[in-house]
Amino acid sequence: MTEFELIARFFTRPSTRAALGNGDDCALVAPSPGNVFAVTTDTLIEGRHFLPTIDPARLGRRAVHVNLSDLAAMGAAPRFALLSLTLPEINEPWIAAFAQGLWSALDAFDVELVGGNTTRGPLAIAITALGDVPPGAALRRSGATAGDELWVSGPLGDAGWALYSLLPDAAVPGGRRPVATQAQIDRYECPTARVALGQALRGLASSCIDISDGLLSEARHLATASGVSIDIEMAAIPTSIADCNRQPDAALAQQCVLATGDAYELLFTAPAWRREDVTHCLVAHGLQGACIGRVVAADARPTVRVLDAKSQAMSIAINGWDHFA
Amino acid sequence: MTEFELIARFFTRPSTRAALGNGDDCALVAPSPGNVFAVTTDTLIEGRHFLPTIDPARLGRRAVHVNLSDLAAMGAAPRFALLSLTLPEINEPWIAAFAQGLWSALDAFDVELVGGNTTRGPLAIAITALGDVPPGAALRRSGATAGDELWVSGPLGDAGWALYSLLPDAAVPGGRRPVATQAQIDRYECPTARVALGQALRGLASSCIDISDGLLSEARHLATASGVSIDIEMAAIPTSIADCNRQPDAALAQQCVLATGDAYELLFTAPAWRREDVTHCLVAHGLQGACIGRVVAADARPTVRVLDAKSQAMSIAINGWDHFA
Repeated sequence: MTEFELIARFFTRPSTRAALGNGDDCALVAPSPGNVFAVTTDTLIEGRHFLPTIDPARLGRRAVHVNLSDLAAMGAAPRFALLSLTLPEINEPWIAAFAQGLWSALDAFDVELVGGNTTRGPLAIAITALGDVPPGAALRRSGATAGDELWVSGPLGDAGWALYSLLPDAAVPGGRRPVATQAQIDRYECPTARVALGQALRGLASSCIDISDGLLSEARHLATASGVSIDIEMAAIPTSIADCNRQPDAALAQQCVLATGDAYELLFTAPAWRREDVTHCLVAHGLQGACIGRVVAADARPTVRVLDAKSQAMSIAINGWDHFA
Repeated sequence: MTEFELIARFFTRPSTRAALGNGDDCALVAPSPGNVFAVTTDTLIEGRHFLPTIDPARLGRRAVHVNLSDLAAMGAAPRFALLSLTLPEINEPWIAAFAQGLWSALDAFDVELVGGNTTRGPLAIAITALGDVPPGAALRRSGATAGDELWVSGPLGDAGWALYSLLPDAAVPGGRRPVATQAQIDRYECPTARVALGQALRGLASSCIDISDGLLSEARHLATASGVSIDIEMAAIPTSIADCNRQPDAALAQQCVLATGDAYELLFTAPAWRREDVTHCLVAHGLQGACIGRVVAADARPTVRVLDAKSQAMSIAINGWDHFA
């Protein structure tokens, strides 16, 4: 099977919404009237963004959701995607399963795959996603102001917990891998981009980001872009690993909640007087989100603090995920 | 240096034309009035699309031109790009040189880098490029009709010749690497996307594709998309390795002209009565292009033939570049 046959067989479907879909040098696409395109690109590398053991259908799904999560964080409606797929070999059952997962995820959001390419090399999946958003309604990182509340759209920590449970002991902080439930492994391998929520937060959230790298890291991005500081209440953060919050796993649980990525929940701020609207919005979308802190004026420079039950700043030695750390 | 510092230092500049540039979850972009976006994505993998020995500034330039070549083939005007960069380590001088080559190429076409990411892994560069084109004026692969002439925008074969000169003997068809001039190596390492020509061919070319994989392979794409056959005159193909067309290198030279990629010239068709317009267009852009064949009606199925000096179909055993062949 050649590169072109591979693309034709697994990754080509006629487009109904692009001016020109797959199969030419470029696709031709335009935002819907009144909108601009939100555009994002992300690469998933084997061993870095997913384990070699992941089921290929799950990997296809995951690659889509990771990219759509960025669109969700802008309040954009996903419309088109391009796939650049690097494969070490042509393993047809693997590719068929990967494609099935990819298409299922794209179909769930009515996204058309309009281009891309395949090449041979270490397994990597680069996806570019384009979505519609009215230019003035896009959710940016920069709109948070003192007095706003900080929200997260769902539980944190499960994905990191599951990841550590799949690694050898030596790769886990503390030297002992935890035990994860299947539900936690599902959360890690099959994150769900909060696409509908992102659009519902237009005009409601003052700033927004998706949690791909870890809560603290993302909160710092919001704080820096908005020129504010952020206080997070540790006890308010929803997590299903709270019951693991005991020795010897307590430090690891804290690490997972605060600093491991792959949650793909939205982290956003909203004016305090919109608290009820935000709550209704989360409930309407079936999400176990929560208010986890507040935006305060920055002193010398934007800072993110984590507060304990006595509102004292905790000493946090960990950071968000950095691919080069 | 963290991932974010790396992006901030080397790959971030304020955008003047995007509704929102670098630094948020997505960029916000829109085509200029009356246009749609031509969008394309390509990944360059070390050892597959470039040799590990390439100068990083040249690599940065090359990554841009390879993607803009797809926009050129649609007749689109490049506007925005996103970069997904996978690096095995943070080597600051290397990254600085790569960034310099990248920006120089982007600046030459007035393209803004509005997003992307970096991660750690085997060296790979994925770029997504977006360009403006009026939807009805885009150059497609599918418009060739019998009677049209086939054109190429410049000499072919140099890039392949240069590539083989840089490989070990054992990797070269025939078992002996050729000697390439510096000009040929420059053509390989620093291809030039025919961006201005592509736009000038709007309304003139009936179909168009860029030669990334090899003349025969690209001609077959035009033939298949247009439902026609194509006859190419071997002697009409411009090449600077014609003087190498002697034993024992003759077969290799033919391979380079017909089937190795990386030329990034445009291959296009135009009605025969527009021959003078095409010639003027090539001259106006300083290009040594030529008419190299003609479009004929397909018999049973679209076919590409290469004709010798006596107009006899040559037996060609080689094919275009296929990443999985």
